[in-house]
Amino acid sequence: MSWQEIATEKKAHQLDSVPKEWISSNLPSTNELNVIEYPRTFLSPLDIEITESQVPALISQLAEGKWSAVQVTTSFYKRAIIAQQLTNCLTEIFVDRALSRAKELDEHLEKTGTVVGPLHGLPISLKDQISIKGIDSTMGYVSWIGKPAEKNSVLVDILESLGAVPFVKTNIPQTLMASGLISSIPYPTSNPYNRSLTSGGSSGGEGALASIRIPSAFCGVYGFRPSSHRVPYAGCVNSLEGEDAVVSVLGPLSNSLDGIKLFYKSVLSKQPWLKDPLVVRKRWSEDEYNLIDHGSGGQLCFAIMWHNGVIVPDPPIRRGLEMTKDALLAAGHKVIDWTPHKQAEITETWQAIWNSGSDEDFKRAAAPEPVIESMGLLPEDTPLQFRPDQPSTMTAFDLWQVHKQRRDLRQEYAQLWEDSVSKTGTGRPVDAIICPAAPYAAPPHGLNNANVAMISMAFNLLDYPALVIPVSHVDQQFYTQDDREGYERYDPKIHEHAPIVIQVVGRTMEEEAVIAMSEIVDKALKATK
Amino acid sequence: MSWQEIATEKKAHQLDSVPKEWISSNLPSTNELNVIEYPRTFLSPLDIEITESQVPALISQLAEGKWSAVQVTTSFYKRAIIAQQLTNCLTEIFVDRALSRAKELDEHLEKTGTVVGPLHGLPISLKDQISIKGIDSTMGYVSWIGKPAEKNSVLVDILESLGAVPFVKTNIPQTLMASGLISSIPYPTSNPYNRSLTSGGSSGGEGALASIRIPSAFCGVYGFRPSSHRVPYAGCVNSLEGEDAVVSVLGPLSNSLDGIKLFYKSVLSKQPWLKDPLVVRKRWSEDEYNLIDHGSGGQLCFAIMWHNGVIVPDPPIRRGLEMTKDALLAAGHKVIDWTPHKQAEITETWQAIWNSGSDEDFKRAAAPEPVIESMGLLPEDTPLQFRPDQPSTMTAFDLWQVHKQRRDLRQEYAQLWEDSVSKTGTGRPVDAIICPAAPYAAPPHGLNNANVAMISMAFNLLDYPALVIPVSHVDQQFYTQDDREGYERYDPKIHEHAPIVIQVVGRTMEEEAVIAMSEIVDKALKATK
Repeated sequence: MSWQEIATEKKAHQLDSVPKEWISSNLPSTNELNVIEYPRTFLSPLDIEITESQVPALISQLAEGKWSAVQVTTSFYKRAIIAQQLTNCLTEIFVDRALSRAKELDEHLEKTGTVVGPLHGLPISLKDQISIKGIDSTMGYVSWIGKPAEKNSVLVDILESLGAVPFVKTNIPQTLMASGLISSIPYPTSNPYNRSLTSGGSSGGEGALASIRIPSAFCGVYGFRPSSHRVPYAGCVNSLEGEDAVVSVLGPLSNSLDGIKLFYKSVLSKQPWLKDPLVVRKRWSEDEYNLIDHGSGGQLCFAIMWHNGVIVPDPPIRRGLEMTKDALLAAGHKVIDWTPHKQAEITETWQAIWNSGSDEDFKRAAAPEPVIESMGLLPEDTPLQFRPDQPSTMTAFDLWQVHKQRRDLRQEYAQLWEDSVSKTGTGRPVDAIICPAAPYAAPPHGLNNANVAMISMAFNLLDYPALVIPVSHVDQQFYTQDDREGYERYDPKIHEHAPIVIQVVGRTMEEEAVIAMSEIVDKALKATK
Repeated sequence: MSWQEIATEKKAHQLDSVPKEWISSNLPSTNELNVIEYPRTFLSPLDIEITESQVPALISQLAEGKWSAVQVTTSFYKRAIIAQQLTNCLTEIFVDRALSRAKELDEHLEKTGTVVGPLHGLPISLKDQISIKGIDSTMGYVSWIGKPAEKNSVLVDILESLGAVPFVKTNIPQTLMASGLISSIPYPTSNPYNRSLTSGGSSGGEGALASIRIPSAFCGVYGFRPSSHRVPYAGCVNSLEGEDAVVSVLGPLSNSLDGIKLFYKSVLSKQPWLKDPLVVRKRWSEDEYNLIDHGSGGQLCFAIMWHNGVIVPDPPIRRGLEMTKDALLAAGHKVIDWTPHKQAEITETWQAIWNSGSDEDFKRAAAPEPVIESMGLLPEDTPLQFRPDQPSTMTAFDLWQVHKQRRDLRQEYAQLWEDSVSKTGTGRPVDAIICPAAPYAAPPHGLNNANVAMISMAFNLLDYPALVIPVSHVDQQFYTQDDREGYERYDPKIHEHAPIVIQVVGRTMEEEAVIAMSEIVDKALKATK
């Protein structure tokens, strides 16, 4: 078979293992763009209750045996299959494996009266690159289809030991570098709020590093990008392996901050550094979560980076930041401005690092499949692109020089952060930076430029933890005259219904504090609604 | 001036700022090899008492004002100047700066009744690459002479804020890669126990990574190599900058484990991650020091790696391990063997990484000074060498592939360590590995092969913390018939008086536990003496 046929074949059999009654034959017309409410029309009241529960409630119902793991897994499957039909979000669906694991958990609870772990019975979806023994892990490469993983990723072992039930794998793009939606394996993933929009980027190569925040931002869910080397990556497939300077990380997406915290704290409780030596040996710190480095959280000073000096965000994004500022001031915190610093240099640096070997990496991994159009193949003079289509001549020594640039940028930012103590009035430097996750709300399929992920990517190079918080949704109006005049090119109609988010950024390895400060921001925002 | 003249000139003026009465005009003949006791013949009883105090006693005398910081600094200077005359251990001597800082500390104590910090008044010597504003920082490169640092390294700021008094800088070799003694700046550093021997390596390029443990081993003092990115490196000069995969680290040498612990714990107390973003945000953990991950230290299981499968250590090194084994068994701990694993591959991997850009790095840093003979220029077919004299053709993509090898080796070792649970009988994996720091005791000046640091270097690639403990000294006898027969090539006469040490190795980022377990090993050893 040609690689095109292999891809089509894979797609054709995707729902083969799914019980027929979970598959809807009465789908909305493709002209219907906002399908976020659609699954409700198919699901039972119990399925809806289960799948719309917040994580702590779900966990507690499971632990008390009020809902069985099999019931919960089944409800989530039903909703996921409809979502798949509507938006093409899944790659692998393994009903037998998941239900059999759920049954084991139910039996364990019945027999022992205790849960297996803090995630007992919680269905969890995994990005396709996270390996499950016996199931395909592709990087969006057709040539990796039909080569099932020989063993679990460390993260899968840990999640299962915590009691979680992996039940589907979610779509990723070719090379992982375009954030979850465009690959030669047919059909891009659509945004459930507006199916003419993307679910996660299509941003010409920046996807992998921003691959938690961009989908969070575009789909309007909480998403946490920890510092590198805190959540175990061992045993996952990846692109650009051996490129160790600016690495992609794994992190949770959830419908609540509780879910984010539970994932992160639970994974650390299993001492992942014992199984993956790249993980930093650092336990969850309740002290840091209680903000000992931030005046115990009494009055915080946030700095808002309204733009990055390169891209002016669209009006709804600015509105999200304004709403956040107002909410934080109303809650008694301080808010100052953060001046963007060398954002273009930062982008050039990580792109130089990636492009130093991306062409050879792509050729070896994907041949005969070509680099697909949407991977960033803009006109040659377009700056700041991930270009696996262009041969690199960089030597190892040259790469060292770029690494030095990166180190110097990190050092400059550390100094900027320390120096901000003179502006906060709290006696401390800025507690966290708040900024857009992307300069736009979810863009249409195929919009392809390097700017989408640029703001978020800067924090990858700096290796800052960052948490995306949903704030609002795009509607068809301008909120100020300034918006109207200044952003004439912007068309709110295109982005209608798309979520608006902000991200909260802390310093390297400060995950606990970022979670705690995000809770403060989230609470302040909710108090104003 | 030619670079040769610049080097000679630098050396000629080294003692210019030193008070005449500190300089001895009655030095022992150069035939006198063991000069370790010599300084005592020049020093006053108080100077001897001060300079031979253990760190906690010294700190406490200073804190109580019984000894002034000026007095203590002066005593240490006197001893250091004699040491310099005997062994050529120093590069920079800055009496005015140090005494003026000591005077400030004395005034502070007198005025406020409190110390500046936990290291109040403690003289500290710094490796030449650690920058002090206004003073030269060379990498053993002649071309860097006369270019004083524009600001302090982060570590210097932290040490001064803790109350320490930097007073001398110590010798390093050209490129840092030959562990502290051979550079074009005249005269190698000699071993005070036997001046025909080296103080620290000359090991053909492995110096930098093993540059804490090899000098510790050869000079018989405690030395601690932490995991990378725990002690701040920012603001130091270095070679191979941008080579971020297998990096050199800073760590303390001391005459006691108390000194090691005090340095490490104090530096972390200053939150170095705020000043150097490469430092991991991880506080000193009293829990980890109390061995919560090691059964609270009750009965530990140590694994001895007698050799690395490549080099058979000399008889006195083996004797040091035997003494340690006996001492640990007598103290009620368990001891099993550790089977060496892929040590040659590990060496090949880090050397491939370094050599990928070392030639270009050297040329840019040192020209017109040539790579010096002792840097490892053995016959071309000698394997496993650091070769800044040979051009590299490695591409960035090739370097990524070597990085992958390194990651895979780290992963294999993590698994080996976890699997050892089946052999310990404690219910835990091996608690720590014990092995030689080098396969020889201090070798003669100029002995130059890649084996000297090979055992220690493996733990750099794996990024394991390792602590060197002095055990004994070489004497002119074989202890067993097996030694005599098996090691005929070995000549104990050459190494006479040289210290014998072992090193205690833990897992990445497990510094606190390694210190605690080293205390247990050290106590056990002392109990048998």
